Amino acid sequence: MRILGIDPGSQRTGVGIIDVDAAGRATHVFHAPLNLLAADETKEQFPLRLKRLLDALGDILDTHRPDEVAIEKVFMARNPDSALKLGQARGAALCAVVLRDLPVHEYAAKEIKLAVVGTGGAEKSQIQHMVGMMLNLKGKLQSDAADALAVAITHAHVRATAQRLGVSARQAWRK
Amino acid sequence: MRILGIDPGSQRTGVGIIDVDAAGRATHVFHAPLNLLAADETKEQFPLRLKRLLDALGDILDTHRPDEVAIEKVFMARNPDSALKLGQARGAALCAVVLRDLPVHEYAAKEIKLAVVGTGGAEKSQIQHMVGMMLNLKGKLQSDAADALAVAITHAHVRATAQRLGVSARQAWRK
Repeated sequence: MRILGIDPGSQRTGVGIIDVDAAGRATHVFHAPLNLLAADETKEQFPLRLKRLLDALGDILDTHRPDEVAIEKVFMARNPDSALKLGQARGAALCAVVLRDLPVHEYAAKEIKLAVVGTGGAEKSQIQHMVGMMLNLKGKLQSDAADALAVAITHAHVRATAQRLGVSARQAWRK
Repeated sequence: MRILGIDPGSQRTGVGIIDVDAAGRATHVFHAPLNLLAADETKEQFPLRLKRLLDALGDILDTHRPDEVAIEKVFMARNPDSALKLGQARGAALCAVVLRDLPVHEYAAKEIKLAVVGTGGAEKSQIQHMVGMMLNLKGKLQSDAADALAVAITHAHVRATAQRLGVSARQAWRK
Protein backbone atom coordinates (compact mmCIF):
# COMPACT_ATOMS: atom_id res chain seq x y z
CA MET A 1 0.00 0.00 0.00
CA ARG A 2 1.54 3.29 -1.13
CA ILE A 3 0.37 6.55 0.45
CA LEU A 4 1.12 10.07 -0.78
CA GLY A 5 0.84 12.90 1.76
CA ILE A 6 0.36 16.58 0.88
CA ASP A 7 1.06 19.63 3.03
CA PRO A 8 -0.58 22.42 1.01
CA GLY A 9 0.90 25.92 0.86
CA SER A 10 0.57 28.81 -1.61
CA GLN A 11 4.34 29.38 -1.88
CA ARG A 12 5.58 25.88 -1.22
CA THR A 13 3.63 22.61 -1.07
CA GLY A 14 5.21 19.59 0.65
CA VAL A 15 4.85 16.11 -0.84
CA GLY A 16 5.87 12.84 0.84
CA ILE A 17 5.37 9.19 -0.09
CA ILE A 18 5.60 6.08 2.08
CA ASP A 19 4.99 2.37 1.55
CA VAL A 20 3.16 0.49 4.28
CA ASP A 21 3.37 -3.31 4.64
CA ALA A 22 0.70 -5.68 5.97
CA ALA A 23 2.03 -5.28 9.52
CA GLY A 24 1.66 -1.50 9.30
CA ARG A 25 5.41 -0.77 9.00
CA ALA A 26 6.16 2.35 6.97
CA THR A 27 9.16 2.83 4.68
CA HIS A 28 10.21 6.07 3.00
CA VAL A 29 9.80 6.32 -0.78
CA PHE A 30 10.07 10.00 -1.71
CA HIS A 31 9.74 13.51 -0.40
CA ALA A 32 10.11 17.00 -1.83
CA PRO A 33 9.02 20.57 -1.19
CA LEU A 34 7.43 21.87 -4.41
CA ASN A 35 8.39 25.50 -4.85
CA LEU A 36 5.50 27.34 -6.54
CA LEU A 37 7.13 30.76 -6.88
CA ALA A 38 8.93 31.67 -10.07
CA ALA A 39 12.06 33.76 -9.50
CA ASP A 40 10.58 36.68 -11.44
CA GLU A 41 6.92 36.25 -10.47
CA THR A 42 4.63 39.26 -10.44
CA LYS A 43 1.30 39.50 -8.65
CA GLU A 44 -0.49 39.00 -11.97
CA GLN A 45 0.87 35.49 -12.34
CA PHE A 46 -0.82 33.69 -9.46
CA PRO A 47 -2.67 31.29 -11.84
CA LEU A 48 0.78 30.15 -13.06
CA ARG A 49 1.63 29.01 -9.53
CA LEU A 50 -1.40 26.76 -9.63
CA LYS A 51 -0.31 25.39 -12.99
CA ARG A 52 3.17 24.71 -11.63
CA LEU A 53 1.64 22.82 -8.70
CA LEU A 54 -0.80 20.90 -10.89
CA ASP A 55 2.01 19.84 -13.26
CA ALA A 56 4.63 18.99 -10.61
CA LEU A 57 2.24 17.05 -8.38
CA GLY A 58 0.76 15.35 -11.45
CA ASP A 59 4.24 14.16 -12.49
CA ILE A 60 4.91 12.77 -9.00
CA LEU A 61 1.53 10.99 -8.94
CA ASP A 62 2.17 9.47 -12.38
CA THR A 63 5.74 8.41 -11.48
CA HIS A 64 5.12 6.93 -8.02
CA ARG A 65 1.49 5.79 -8.48
CA PRO A 66 0.22 5.93 -4.88
CA ASP A 67 -2.90 3.94 -3.93
CA GLU A 68 -4.31 6.60 -1.62
CA VAL A 69 -3.70 10.25 -0.83
CA ALA A 70 -3.79 12.07 2.52
CA ILE A 71 -3.85 15.85 2.83
CA GLU A 72 -3.60 18.21 5.75
CA LYS A 73 -6.78 20.11 6.55
CA VAL A 74 -5.76 23.72 6.68
CA PHE A 75 -5.77 24.93 10.22
CA MET A 76 -6.89 28.48 10.75
CA ALA A 77 -5.21 30.83 8.34
CA ARG A 78 -3.92 34.17 9.61
CA ASN A 79 -6.42 36.25 7.65
CA PRO A 80 -8.97 35.95 4.81
CA ASP A 81 -6.42 37.00 2.18
CA SER A 82 -3.85 34.33 3.04
CA ALA A 83 -6.71 31.83 3.48
CA LEU A 84 -7.80 32.57 -0.10
CA LYS A 85 -4.30 32.00 -1.49
CA LEU A 86 -3.80 28.86 0.57
CA GLY A 87 -7.24 27.63 -0.47
CA GLN A 88 -6.41 28.06 -4.14
CA ALA A 89 -3.18 26.08 -3.78
CA ARG A 90 -5.00 23.36 -1.83
CA GLY A 91 -7.70 23.31 -4.53
CA ALA A 92 -5.07 22.86 -7.26
CA ALA A 93 -3.36 20.06 -5.31
CA LEU A 94 -6.71 18.29 -4.88
CA CYS A 95 -7.40 18.74 -8.60
CA ALA A 96 -4.17 16.87 -9.47
CA VAL A 97 -5.43 14.04 -7.24
CA VAL A 98 -9.09 13.88 -8.29
CA LEU A 99 -8.08 14.09 -11.97
CA ARG A 100 -6.50 10.65 -11.36
CA ASP A 101 -9.55 9.36 -9.44
CA LEU A 102 -7.52 8.63 -6.31
CA PRO A 103 -9.24 8.52 -2.90
CA VAL A 104 -8.37 11.49 -0.67
CA HIS A 105 -8.42 11.51 3.13
CA GLU A 106 -8.19 14.72 5.12
CA TYR A 107 -6.60 15.09 8.55
CA ALA A 108 -6.48 18.12 10.84
CA ALA A 109 -3.06 19.32 12.06
CA LYS A 110 -4.01 18.23 15.58
CA GLU A 111 -4.79 14.67 14.43
CA ILE A 112 -1.43 14.49 12.63
CA LYS A 113 0.54 15.73 15.65
CA LEU A 114 -1.31 13.24 17.85
CA ALA A 115 -0.55 10.33 15.49
CA VAL A 116 3.12 11.19 14.91
CA VAL A 117 4.30 12.81 18.16
CA GLY A 118 1.65 11.58 20.59
CA THR A 119 0.34 15.02 21.55
CA GLY A 120 -1.97 17.37 19.66
CA GLY A 121 0.11 20.37 20.72
CA ALA A 122 3.48 19.23 19.28
CA GLU A 123 5.93 21.72 17.75
CA LYS A 124 7.02 21.70 14.08
CA SER A 125 10.53 20.60 15.11
CA GLN A 126 9.13 17.59 17.01
CA ILE A 127 7.28 16.45 13.88
CA GLN A 128 10.46 16.80 11.79
CA HIS A 129 12.37 14.77 14.39
CA MET A 130 9.75 11.99 14.80
CA VAL A 131 9.15 11.59 11.06
CA GLY A 132 12.92 11.27 10.53
CA MET A 133 13.13 8.64 13.30
CA MET A 134 10.11 6.64 12.09
CA LEU A 135 11.38 6.46 8.51
CA ASN A 136 15.10 6.05 9.38
CA LEU A 137 16.06 9.23 7.51
CA LYS A 138 19.48 10.77 7.99
CA GLY A 139 19.88 14.54 8.34
CA LYS A 140 17.25 17.19 9.03
CA LEU A 141 14.06 17.06 7.00
CA GLN A 142 12.76 20.25 5.39
CA SER A 143 9.60 21.28 7.28
CA ASP A 144 7.00 21.10 4.45
CA ALA A 145 8.25 17.68 3.35
CA ALA A 146 8.21 16.47 6.98
CA ASP A 147 4.59 17.62 7.33
CA ALA A 148 3.67 15.83 4.09
CA LEU A 149 5.29 12.57 5.29
CA ALA A 150 3.56 13.08 8.66
CA VAL A 151 0.07 13.20 7.10
CA ALA A 152 0.92 10.05 5.08
CA ILE A 153 2.04 8.29 8.30
CA THR A 154 -1.15 9.46 10.02
CA HIS A 155 -3.27 7.92 7.29
CA ALA A 156 -1.27 4.66 7.52
CA HIS A 157 -1.95 4.50 11.29
CA VAL A 158 -5.63 5.25 10.87
CA ARG A 159 -5.91 2.62 8.13
CA ALA A 160 -4.15 -0.03 10.24
CA THR A 161 -6.38 0.67 13.24
CA ALA A 162 -9.45 0.65 11.02
CA GLN A 163 -8.46 -2.68 9.48
CA ARG A 164 -8.05 -4.29 12.88
CA LEU A 165 -11.50 -3.07 13.84
CA GLY A 166 -13.03 -3.85 10.44
CA VAL A 167 -14.35 -0.35 9.82
CA SER A 168 -13.57 2.40 7.32
CA ALA A 169 -10.64 4.72 8.03
CA ARG A 170 -12.52 7.85 9.01
CA GLN A 171 -14.96 5.97 11.21
CA ALA A 172 -12.09 4.39 13.14
CA TRP A 173 -10.50 7.73 13.76
CA ARG A 174 -13.65 9.30 15.04
CA LYS A 175 -14.28 6.70 17.73
CA MET B 1 -12.86 36.95 -30.04
CA ARG B 2 -14.65 34.70 -27.56
CA ILE B 3 -14.37 35.45 -23.83
CA LEU B 4 -15.39 33.15 -20.97
CA GLY B 5 -16.09 34.76 -17.61
CA ILE B 6 -16.03 32.96 -14.26
CA ASP B 7 -17.64 34.02 -10.98
CA PRO B 8 -16.08 31.57 -8.51
CA GLY B 9 -18.03 30.18 -5.54
CA SER B 10 -17.64 27.07 -3.37
CA GLN B 11 -21.29 26.04 -3.68
CA ARG B 12 -22.10 27.49 -7.08
CA THR B 13 -19.73 28.88 -9.73
CA GLY B 14 -21.14 31.11 -12.48
CA VAL B 15 -19.93 30.76 -16.07
CA GLY B 16 -20.75 33.11 -18.94
CA ILE B 17 -19.49 33.35 -22.51
CA ILE B 18 -19.68 36.28 -24.97
CA ASP B 19 -18.40 36.93 -28.46
CA VAL B 20 -16.92 40.35 -29.19
CA ASP B 21 -16.60 41.74 -32.71
CA ALA B 22 -13.93 44.10 -34.06
CA ALA B 23 -16.03 47.13 -33.08
CA GLY B 24 -16.22 45.89 -29.47
CA ARG B 25 -19.89 44.80 -29.68
CA ALA B 26 -20.68 41.86 -27.39
CA THR B 27 -23.16 39.07 -28.13
CA HIS B 28 -24.32 36.39 -25.71
CA VAL B 29 -23.15 32.80 -26.35
CA PHE B 30 -23.79 30.84 -23.17
CA HIS B 31 -24.32 31.12 -19.44
CA ALA B 32 -24.92 28.71 -16.59
CA PRO B 33 -24.58 28.48 -12.83
CA LEU B 34 -22.56 25.31 -12.08
CA ASN B 35 -23.98 23.70 -8.95
CA LEU B 36 -21.12 22.04 -7.04
CA LEU B 37 -23.16 20.48 -4.24
CA ALA B 38 -24.35 16.90 -4.58
CA ALA B 39 -27.80 16.33 -3.10
CA ASP B 40 -26.39 13.88 -0.54
CA GLU B 41 -23.02 15.52 0.08
CA THR B 42 -21.30 15.04 3.41
CA LYS B 43 -18.51 17.21 4.81
CA GLU B 44 -15.96 14.54 3.86
CA GLN B 45 -16.71 14.98 0.17
CA PHE B 46 -15.41 18.49 -0.45
CA PRO B 47 -12.75 17.23 -2.93
CA LEU B 48 -15.63 15.84 -5.03
CA ARG B 49 -17.02 19.37 -5.39
CA LEU B 50 -13.71 20.41 -6.92
CA LYS B 51 -13.84 17.44 -9.28
CA ARG B 52 -17.38 18.36 -10.31
CA LEU B 53 -16.23 21.93 -11.03
CA LEU B 54 -13.10 20.79 -12.89
CA ASP B 55 -15.15 18.40 -15.07
CA ALA B 56 -18.09 20.74 -15.76
CA LEU B 57 -15.96 23.78 -16.54
CA GLY B 58 -13.60 21.61 -18.60
CA ASP B 59 -16.56 20.41 -20.71
CA ILE B 60 -17.72 23.99 -21.28
CA LEU B 61 -14.19 25.11 -22.25
CA ASP B 62 -13.84 22.19 -24.67
CA THR B 63 -17.29 22.77 -26.19
CA HIS B 64 -17.20 26.56 -26.59
CA ARG B 65 -13.42 27.04 -27.03
CA PRO B 66 -12.99 30.61 -25.71
CA ASP B 67 -9.87 32.59 -26.71
CA GLU B 68 -9.43 34.22 -23.32
CA VAL B 69 -10.76 33.83 -19.80
CA ALA B 70 -11.67 36.49 -17.22
CA ILE B 71 -12.27 35.70 -13.56
CA GLU B 72 -13.52 37.75 -10.65
CA LYS B 73 -10.91 38.48 -7.99
CA VAL B 74 -12.51 37.39 -4.77
CA PHE B 75 -13.44 40.42 -2.78
CA MET B 76 -13.04 40.11 0.94
CA ALA B 77 -14.50 36.87 2.22
CA ARG B 78 -16.53 36.92 5.43
CA ASN B 79 -14.04 34.86 7.44
CA PRO B 80 -10.93 32.66 6.97
CA ASP B 81 -13.00 29.46 6.80
CA SER B 82 -15.24 30.63 3.94
CA ALA B 83 -12.17 32.21 2.28
CA LEU B 84 -10.49 28.79 2.32
CA LYS B 85 -13.49 27.07 0.70
CA LEU B 86 -13.90 29.82 -1.84
CA GLY B 87 -10.15 29.74 -2.55
CA GLN B 88 -10.25 26.01 -3.25
CA ALA B 89 -13.13 26.42 -5.70
CA ARG B 90 -11.36 29.32 -7.40
CA GLY B 91 -8.18 27.21 -7.56
CA ALA B 92 -10.07 24.35 -9.21
CA ALA B 93 -11.68 26.72 -11.74
CA LEU B 94 -8.26 28.17 -12.59
CA CYS B 95 -6.88 24.63 -12.96
CA ALA B 96 -9.51 23.83 -15.61
CA VAL B 97 -8.33 26.96 -17.47
CA VAL B 98 -4.53 26.60 -17.10
CA LEU B 99 -4.78 22.90 -18.06
CA ARG B 100 -5.88 24.23 -21.47
CA ASP B 101 -3.14 26.90 -21.57
CA LEU B 102 -5.65 29.74 -21.90
CA PRO B 103 -4.70 33.26 -20.80
CA VAL B 104 -6.49 34.38 -17.60
CA HIS B 105 -7.26 37.95 -16.64
CA GLU B 106 -8.40 38.89 -13.14
CA TYR B 107 -10.73 41.77 -12.26
CA ALA B 108 -11.81 43.05 -8.87
CA ALA B 109 -15.56 43.30 -8.14
CA LYS B 110 -15.21 47.09 -8.11
CA GLU B 111 -13.65 47.14 -11.59
CA ILE B 112 -16.49 44.94 -12.90
CA LYS B 113 -19.21 47.14 -11.39
CA LEU B 114 -17.51 50.22 -12.81
CA ALA B 115 -17.29 48.69 -16.31
CA VAL B 116 -20.84 47.32 -16.40
CA VAL B 117 -22.91 49.74 -14.32
CA GLY B 118 -20.68 52.81 -14.32
CA THR B 119 -20.18 52.96 -10.55
CA GLY B 120 -17.91 50.84 -8.32
CA GLY B 121 -20.60 50.66 -5.65
CA ALA B 122 -23.36 49.10 -7.81
CA GLU B 123 -25.79 46.55 -6.34
CA LYS B 124 -26.06 42.90 -7.50
CA SER B 125 -29.48 43.62 -9.02
CA GLN B 126 -28.06 46.51 -11.10
CA ILE B 127 -25.43 44.15 -12.56
CA GLN B 128 -28.13 41.59 -13.44
CA HIS B 129 -30.19 44.32 -15.10
CA MET B 130 -27.31 45.91 -17.06
CA VAL B 131 -25.88 42.58 -18.27
CA GLY B 132 -29.34 41.56 -19.50
CA MET B 133 -29.71 44.90 -21.32
CA MET B 134 -26.23 44.83 -22.89
CA LEU B 135 -26.67 41.29 -24.21
CA ASN B 136 -30.37 41.62 -25.17
CA LEU B 137 -31.41 38.80 -22.84
CA LYS B 138 -35.06 38.26 -22.00
CA GLY B 139 -36.09 37.45 -18.42
CA LYS B 140 -34.14 37.77 -15.19
CA LEU B 141 -30.61 36.40 -15.14
CA GLN B 142 -29.55 34.17 -12.25
CA SER B 143 -27.06 36.16 -10.15
CA ASP B 144 -23.91 33.96 -10.48
CA ALA B 145 -24.34 33.71 -14.25
CA ALA B 146 -24.88 37.49 -14.47
CA ASP B 147 -21.63 38.07 -12.53
CA ALA B 148 -19.78 35.68 -14.86
CA LEU B 149 -21.08 37.48 -17.96
CA ALA B 150 -20.22 40.81 -16.27
CA VAL B 151 -16.54 39.87 -15.83
CA ALA B 152 -16.42 38.72 -19.47
CA ILE B 153 -17.93 42.07 -20.57
CA THR B 154 -15.40 43.90 -18.36
CA HIS B 155 -12.53 42.10 -20.06
CA ALA B 156 -13.99 42.92 -23.50
CA HIS B 157 -14.13 46.64 -22.55
CA VAL B 158 -10.60 46.63 -21.17
CA ARG B 159 -9.32 44.84 -24.28
CA ALA B 160 -11.04 47.30 -26.62
CA THR B 161 -9.65 50.30 -24.73
CA ALA B 162 -6.20 48.71 -24.68
CA GLN B 163 -6.30 48.06 -28.41
CA ARG B 164 -7.18 51.68 -29.16
CA LEU B 165 -4.26 52.80 -27.02
CA GLY B 166 -1.91 50.09 -28.31
CA VAL B 167 -1.04 48.69 -24.87
CA SER B 168 -1.71 45.41 -23.07
CA ALA B 169 -5.05 44.94 -21.33
CA ARG B 170 -3.92 45.27 -17.72
CA GLN B 171 -1.77 48.28 -18.45
CA ALA B 172 -4.67 50.07 -20.07
CA TRP B 173 -6.88 49.48 -17.10
CA ARG B 174 -4.34 50.79 -14.66
CA LYS B 175 -3.89 54.15 -16.33
